[in-house]
Amino acid sequence: MIDYVAPLRDMQFILSELAGIDEIAALPGCEDATPDLVAAILEEAGKFAAGVLAPINRQGDEQGCRLEEDGRVTTPDGWQQAYDQFRESGWLGLALPAEFGGQGMPKLVATPVSEMWCATNMAFNMLPILNQGQAEALLIAASDEQKALYLPKVVSGEWGATMNLTEPQAGSDLAATRTRAEPQADGSYRLFGQKIFISYGEHELTPNIVHLVLARLPDAPAGVKGLSLFIVPKYLVDADGSLGSKNDVRCISIEHKMGIHGSPTCTLSFGDAGGAIGHLVGQPNRGLETMFVMMNEARFGVGVQGLGLADRAYQFALAYARDRVQGRDVVSGESGKPIIHHPDVKRMVLSMRARVMAMRALLYTAAGWFDLAHRHPDAEVAGKYRRYVDLLMPVAKGWCTEVGNDVCDDALQIFGGMGFVEETGIAQYFRDARIITIYEGTTGIQANDLIGRKILRENGETLRELIVDLRAVVATLKQDGELGDVGDGLADAIDALESAADWMLANGKEQLADVLAGAVPFLYLLGTVCGGWQLARMALAARSRLAAGEGDEAYLGSLVELARFYMATIGPQALAHAETVREAGGALTRFDLSQL
Amino acid sequence: MIDYVAPLRDMQFILSELAGIDEIAALPGCEDATPDLVAAILEEAGKFAAGVLAPINRQGDEQGCRLEEDGRVTTPDGWQQAYDQFRESGWLGLALPAEFGGQGMPKLVATPVSEMWCATNMAFNMLPILNQGQAEALLIAASDEQKALYLPKVVSGEWGATMNLTEPQAGSDLAATRTRAEPQADGSYRLFGQKIFISYGEHELTPNIVHLVLARLPDAPAGVKGLSLFIVPKYLVDADGSLGSKNDVRCISIEHKMGIHGSPTCTLSFGDAGGAIGHLVGQPNRGLETMFVMMNEARFGVGVQGLGLADRAYQFALAYARDRVQGRDVVSGESGKPIIHHPDVKRMVLSMRARVMAMRALLYTAAGWFDLAHRHPDAEVAGKYRRYVDLLMPVAKGWCTEVGNDVCDDALQIFGGMGFVEETGIAQYFRDARIITIYEGTTGIQANDLIGRKILRENGETLRELIVDLRAVVATLKQDGELGDVGDGLADAIDALESAADWMLANGKEQLADVLAGAVPFLYLLGTVCGGWQLARMALAARSRLAAGEGDEAYLGSLVELARFYMATIGPQALAHAETVREAGGALTRFDLSQL
Repeated sequence: MIDYVAPLRDMQFILSELAGIDEIAALPGCEDATPDLVAAILEEAGKFAAGVLAPINRQGDEQGCRLEEDGRVTTPDGWQQAYDQFRESGWLGLALPAEFGGQGMPKLVATPVSEMWCATNMAFNMLPILNQGQAEALLIAASDEQKALYLPKVVSGEWGATMNLTEPQAGSDLAATRTRAEPQADGSYRLFGQKIFISYGEHELTPNIVHLVLARLPDAPAGVKGLSLFIVPKYLVDADGSLGSKNDVRCISIEHKMGIHGSPTCTLSFGDAGGAIGHLVGQPNRGLETMFVMMNEARFGVGVQGLGLADRAYQFALAYARDRVQGRDVVSGESGKPIIHHPDVKRMVLSMRARVMAMRALLYTAAGWFDLAHRHPDAEVAGKYRRYVDLLMPVAKGWCTEVGNDVCDDALQIFGGMGFVEETGIAQYFRDARIITIYEGTTGIQANDLIGRKILRENGETLRELIVDLRAVVATLKQDGELGDVGDGLADAIDALESAADWMLANGKEQLADVLAGAVPFLYLLGTVCGGWQLARMALAARSRLAAGEGDEAYLGSLVELARFYMATIGPQALAHAETVREAGGALTRFDLSQL
Repeated sequence: MIDYVAPLRDMQFILSELAGIDEIAALPGCEDATPDLVAAILEEAGKFAAGVLAPINRQGDEQGCRLEEDGRVTTPDGWQQAYDQFRESGWLGLALPAEFGGQGMPKLVATPVSEMWCATNMAFNMLPILNQGQAEALLIAASDEQKALYLPKVVSGEWGATMNLTEPQAGSDLAATRTRAEPQADGSYRLFGQKIFISYGEHELTPNIVHLVLARLPDAPAGVKGLSLFIVPKYLVDADGSLGSKNDVRCISIEHKMGIHGSPTCTLSFGDAGGAIGHLVGQPNRGLETMFVMMNEARFGVGVQGLGLADRAYQFALAYARDRVQGRDVVSGESGKPIIHHPDVKRMVLSMRARVMAMRALLYTAAGWFDLAHRHPDAEVAGKYRRYVDLLMPVAKGWCTEVGNDVCDDALQIFGGMGFVEETGIAQYFRDARIITIYEGTTGIQANDLIGRKILRENGETLRELIVDLRAVVATLKQDGELGDVGDGLADAIDALESAADWMLANGKEQLADVLAGAVPFLYLLGTVCGGWQLARMALAARSRLAAGEGDEAYLGSLVELARFYMATIGPQALAHAETVREAGGALTRFDLSQL
């Protein structure tokens, strides 16, 4: 197995040059994020990822989880020790409020750290991600009493946490949720129903698990406006926080999945023995609003999984391509050279790096937007970044997960026949990655959200605002004598984006189905442009450092070439996507479904 | 599990309208391929695929193969019965010469039949494919005595067959082969060495297995010009065909693979106990030539695997999309409709069908070329089709396997979370498919072969010949009042192809590395154009039938719309690929490898 090396240099470059770590550290509440502390956090996280999480990733895949006769779920060897270490080191609460035991770091600092967990052990990382997501939900909607009782345990990881949304008939469509909650005389509720696809829905890693469950009250309106949110602990919790009797929740099966075997995916049955005791979180019938606020965060987190998996897959492929000797040099005829010297292999490896760096720059930049949106004292500035977060989260999720899969696929290809064999470890990355374009909303759902809720609903305003920013980068590129070609490529891609967006805005009312037929191609188009934008910014930053005579010349020069390579090999797809956006709907509408 | 339905109507349409079954049936030796017999063969094959192979596919995946302590390899439950039935029904020799027990059908008839085996059970189908490949090799190079002794058993499937090329240090690069063969006084040889990735290298399905092994004679020149081919039977064969003692060949391990679990992938050790007895096939040091003659056939066969897997994955996804109710109609707001009504899902399913039909038309058309090349009495006509086969085999293999994977990927996506769960069966298709872009030469190897051996070496002559044929189709499309838009799309794609080819030809001598950096994008480009070409031909054929008032109007109309949809959603990528062909090399060459 190839050792994981935390990409600290790339991370630091992007944090400081593109994502504005200095500006973020100056925000109220972010004062602790000093350069020294951030560097120390990244370094320690890299050590933990390489030393604790990476070594148990393969056995997690091989052993998987088991549902025992008595209803207990066992996790792979090493999971308990790694989790205890993770929890005790305080990693779980890194970006959660100090008030509840977290470390209050900005999201921008937590993002590279998450990337490292995802890179080294995605199945393990599902566990703390759930605590973080639930903590965000409770912070938004829980009562002070609930916060005091649950949050410290959820933030520290002393207790596990789950999100219970999906039901067999309610996947992408939560309106179809049937789980019901009956009010009790004491103010609590009794829940009845079945939830599926519950990650870490049952396990023995923590003495208790806090389930957050979406359910309907008896008088609830139909559809998504009748969903309420409930805390349903595995063991009931007394007012002093001590554990009482077992609640009426059972794990009745775990899924046999293609990947992330180390993460138990459970079917939970609530209320088989009289009702699972739950506590309403927030207002009745407003559960989905809370979930929506969380959703940007959760989707962003899955985008980071795409980045993490892609980076480790890239590391695997690069090491293999440098080591594997095969064939002759196409020009000199020389043999005995590693395959990275073959043009096609070099192209693939470079393409992987270009995409990894584009995703990293986009996601870190977006993480900075989250912090600015939450904390910037000027409401206008905060508002702009809130709009950017809202507009681009479907891209951060949809594009980075699709690209993450593509990169894992290329990595496997570089291994040739050895890639298809499980022993080399790359096949696990290919399999694990396959869930990320599905959960937290498929790429199709992301694209519909992008077009419907984020563009058409506001008549494309934020997108136009973004395009102005994009064109400003083009102008700067053209002023630089060396980057004119990158500027030309980016300008073409932006033109394609704008023309596709104009077409969608012009037709969104009358021909919504046609427009939505091009939703995924449009998401790819916007992702392709955003990736190019970020690499162009990276090239500009590298050029200024070079001009100032600072930094490693070869490294900085390679960042410039990376942008150029992206524009040569990925940028041209923007035009194809734009044409497809305009043409797909018509061709689709004419096609008679009965002839499929 | 969703039942397999043999796509007989599509198959028949392509056979008769695009691939010229009538013309093929008129070739010398193909007289038996009458319309009635061909229809009967396809129907029976469809029943066998659906009734015998499909039902054991899942258990093959779940159980896999086992290497026992005593060196025996066991295959999954049902394999033996299915194989016996397959063999007894005479399927194995369908396109092999009647002289050795085959049925002498044209390749054009065998291709849809193979498609059905691949669609329903790829791991099983690896077994007869090996016999067919070995029979082709023996037909080319074996002595009459060898043919008499081995061919009837290999053609009937009474004995198994393997191809032994790969060694740990010799994967894509057979020049590095180390297995050696020492001549014996009696004219036989003793072989020593290790071969890896040997499909069905050991099993108990047949009483004997004939290994065909690439090895070096003591005085052989270095490199690929020093490889000879040997028959090495598992059990020695007496002159009368009866089995003698066990040869010195052992299976020392089987691979733990991501897919095709039902097919044992063996490491074979030759000569641990004094040398494995082998018999030279053909001339010394000319083994690779024999392998090369076979290679077009083998690569074509893997392209058909891409088609078969894609078609079944499409069938799975279509059935699921028609059954699964989720969400609301985007225009009417109506709920309770299956997901195929969502524009994005309809787009994906239609795109799957368009690509399946494009692959099918291309592969069947190419199968007809094989027959014409082998059997057409006019040497000039035969020569033209031989050139087309040579030029386009890397595309049939490279493009159809990549597209096959993409289609399986889309199918899984349509299942959402259920796709990631093994129970639905689609995940197996996604995993099984992942080997086909690797074995029989990776996509990169195909692309290098396409550019180097098939285009640059002959200065693009056959490609230009093909482009003339392509432009003739454009002219016909433009004459048809309804197909002008398809003609415009195809013309743009052909222009892109020609300009990229011109650039490659102009730079292939001076900047070969740059040109090869764009080899895979060029292969995609040519594949994209060929797919559009075939769907355009299909649309034209459908239009003539419609004009003649023949056939099912809705079906024929849907074929026209399929071509239109392909041009709207896949055709535009041709231009992006062409730009990448021209630009990738420069950007790649400038990049400093040490900065990866």
